[in-house]
Amino acid sequence: MRNFLSIRDVTDLKSLVAQALRFKKDPYSERYLGQGKTLGLIFMNPSLRTRLSTQRAAYQLGMEVMVMNMNQDSWQLEFQDGTVMNKGTAEHVREAAAVISQYCDIIGIRTFAELQDREKDYQELILSKFVAYAQVPVISLESATLHPLQSLADIVTLTEHQTSKKPKVVVSWAPHPRALPQAVVNSFLQWARLWDCELLLTHPEGYELSDEFTSGVSVLHDQEKALEGADFVYTKNWSSYQQYGQVLKTDASWMINEKKMSLTNNGRFMHCLPLRRNVVATDRVVDNSLVIPQSKNRLYAAQAVLSEILKNG
Amino acid sequence: MRNFLSIRDVTDLKSLVAQALRFKKDPYSERYLGQGKTLGLIFMNPSLRTRLSTQRAAYQLGMEVMVMNMNQDSWQLEFQDGTVMNKGTAEHVREAAAVISQYCDIIGIRTFAELQDREKDYQELILSKFVAYAQVPVISLESATLHPLQSLADIVTLTEHQTSKKPKVVVSWAPHPRALPQAVVNSFLQWARLWDCELLLTHPEGYELSDEFTSGVSVLHDQEKALEGADFVYTKNWSSYQQYGQVLKTDASWMINEKKMSLTNNGRFMHCLPLRRNVVATDRVVDNSLVIPQSKNRLYAAQAVLSEILKNG
Amino acid sequence: MRNFLSIRDVTDLKSLVAQALRFKKDPYSERYLGQGKTLGLIFMNPSLRTRLSTQRAAYQLGMEVMVMNMNQDSWQLEFQDGTVMNKGTAEHVREAAAVISQYCDIIGIRTFAELQDREKDYQELILSKFVAYAQVPVISLESATLHPLQSLADIVTLTEHQTSKKPKVVVSWAPHPRALPQAVVNSFLQWARLWDCELLLTHPEGYELSDEFTSGVSVLHDQEKALEGADFVYTKNWSSYQQYGQVLKTDASWMINEKKMSLTNNGRFMHCLPLRRNVVATDRVVDNSLVIPQSKNRLYAAQAVLSEILKNG
Repeated sequence: MRNFLSIRDVTDLKSLVAQALRFKKDPYSERYLGQGKTLGLIFMNPSLRTRLSTQRAAYQLGMEVMVMNMNQDSWQLEFQDGTVMNKGTAEHVREAAAVISQYCDIIGIRTFAELQDREKDYQELILSKFVAYAQVPVISLESATLHPLQSLADIVTLTEHQTSKKPKVVVSWAPHPRALPQAVVNSFLQWARLWDCELLLTHPEGYELSDEFTSGVSVLHDQEKALEGADFVYTKNWSSYQQYGQVLKTDASWMINEKKMSLTNNGRFMHCLPLRRNVVATDRVVDNSLVIPQSKNRLYAAQAVLSEILKNG
Repeated sequence: MRNFLSIRDVTDLKSLVAQALRFKKDPYSERYLGQGKTLGLIFMNPSLRTRLSTQRAAYQLGMEVMVMNMNQDSWQLEFQDGTVMNKGTAEHVREAAAVISQYCDIIGIRTFAELQDREKDYQELILSKFVAYAQVPVISLESATLHPLQSLADIVTLTEHQTSKKPKVVVSWAPHPRALPQAVVNSFLQWARLWDCELLLTHPEGYELSDEFTSGVSVLHDQEKALEGADFVYTKNWSSYQQYGQVLKTDASWMINEKKMSLTNNGRFMHCLPLRRNVVATDRVVDNSLVIPQSKNRLYAAQAVLSEILKNG
Repeated sequence: MRNFLSIRDVTDLKSLVAQALRFKKDPYSERYLGQGKTLGLIFMNPSLRTRLSTQRAAYQLGMEVMVMNMNQDSWQLEFQDGTVMNKGTAEHVREAAAVISQYCDIIGIRTFAELQDREKDYQELILSKFVAYAQVPVISLESATLHPLQSLADIVTLTEHQTSKKPKVVVSWAPHPRALPQAVVNSFLQWARLWDCELLLTHPEGYELSDEFTSGVSVLHDQEKALEGADFVYTKNWSSYQQYGQVLKTDASWMINEKKMSLTNNGRFMHCLPLRRNVVATDRVVDNSLVIPQSKNRLYAAQAVLSEILKNG
């Protein structure tokens, strides 16, 4: 593995999941692997789980970590080529990425969807420029359209909690007051399609995702019907992909509650967090869910990815 | 010791002070105790001494440290239960505390008094929720109503500089242009009452503290009379407890100057810092005070607390 | 070396450059030198290269690092003596510097020119007060009027890339939309005058620097004539020193382009970064420049300075 930007960088999903689970049993089994190596974490927007779990993962491999809140600790970056930079941006990503990568052995970067211009977001301009000009491996800590570390943690969680060979996994849209990116759900669909399960997507009309992520995945607009017999209910809000970045619906009828969970096969509720209680799901659903163990697996997912990159380095 | 939230978590004050003093002599005597352990420091408001002294203390025990400015690096947290979270808060403390604690072995958290609603502040809502949902020991880095790491450092400083068996310690209110919490003085009174001294409190009328902290402590409204024969003058501003959060008095008559210090028994001036010079005390008083050695003891106080928690872990 | 604030703290420039180049070949040759020592990095304004390169340098010497964004993570500082501190500043540098230095073995501090009051900036009020009250060595991470870590990296870069015994080094002013300090150019002139080269300064009229830095240095107002036969073109914007802090000229006629570079002796373009492309220099000039290797040398410059201070400690 050179970079970790999406499922496409994973050659063997099963072995990566197995590595994460080995770290969960024995977190310090490779405590010297990263000695003398430094991980740089660059944040372009807020982060809690990713920030802390990736740092801890690096420590467990013996690495040092440097964290920088770009735009707050440093300068505004320019991403367009050929611009006359006489406005707000003070440094071009060509220099910034090259420079940062000279001080780090691996870079993790968190970028974001602006939800204004679909083409721009889906080109992953910021991440791809960073990768192009960095001279070391780059790990996505969530990008405009994908969140692969989250997805790996999700697959680890599914693997730990599956009770049948081919569980039914229902991905359900949830209401949310503010517009959120499609990154988590896009990424989950990419990963879950390569994991042995019956995958079903349910969302209100108007919330269709890009074909790139849903081709071959069954879609139902009837949430209750979709939930029938589910082993896992993976819930997430996203704003519209067609009417890009818009919130078309905020009413509570799509919130997950206990009555809906009772339609499942003792299904387990999953969510990547942060989660708005009594908006996305009721308190009781959240309290009986997998969200906490799921977030714990973020640590081992990051550690497995760092380990694989360090071994190839 | 499981958590360190107040004097109530200390079973043996003398031995904790002795441990701090041992670390002062030999800072690296337990350099491997915290190996492979990570301290997470969560700040909900600014901090200088606490931020740096607690980090350094952890390093001296071989720990790794992750620092996060909540609200700035991450999301706004919800602390009320049962809320429909469709407003500004994006994550509930139930999830945030549980998640963070999965990536850390010990959590230090700095919360604050809003000085709007006395009951709310004195319930220590933020800290207590954090403790309730965290799965690892929690250290208060100052809370709405207490600052136990400061108090431990204060007792260490008193112990080092006492010249008699039962010194006279005068706690004197000081003027300040902005409303400050009662945390430092509340906490100092809790700790000093368990340390062998003659404790006297002096403040203008209207600045009475909660009975919880002052019962059994003599109070004088005549500052000069109170200072007579003092071995230590512990000065601190606080806003009114009765007219909660209000600044009733800002004139300079309560400022500590050399004339007032001359009433003492060669008394030493103490303050937790930050200190507004020529408002709380004159330059000359501050320049000849214990404030710098007192702040150095913050390091050994934190190290003693971390050490005791690590040993019980 | 006690502190590192300017070239005046360097007793042997050649040996310091040689040490930096040794670290470049063998970054972990002194990996235990800083064990049990902590570097505190205090930023009063944004930083990318300095922040990350100095951290990494410390890690390569086995040090721990604590980073603090002053004013953002902590309180506003007071630098004037004798003030009645009843306004915005909450802590005096006398206390802040003394306290921080008790938790650190070395302090790095980044201060800035306000570009309002020339005398105030050139007195280096903030840095010098910090040094006065800190009890440990202080490294300038750029101050109001100097940037010695950058200059050391520049001399290392010149040394690596020189093809003749006494190369011609042209320092050329560049246009920039916002007012920038004179720190980088002042400092470069101080260092380059002690390095064996033919030094020439070119800038528009009105951009004369303080005599302190330019005495003995040839100055030309004709940029093209100055560039003739140059081996290195060190470009940098600065605001006016005479009409202090003002931007007198922003037109593009002083921008470095390929045509101008063709006047040189296959000269190499240098810049400290961040650099506004197509304002300071064209894309093609930047793409074929030394700016990236120059920034890499920031790491080894910082490591050489830290190493020398640790060895004297």
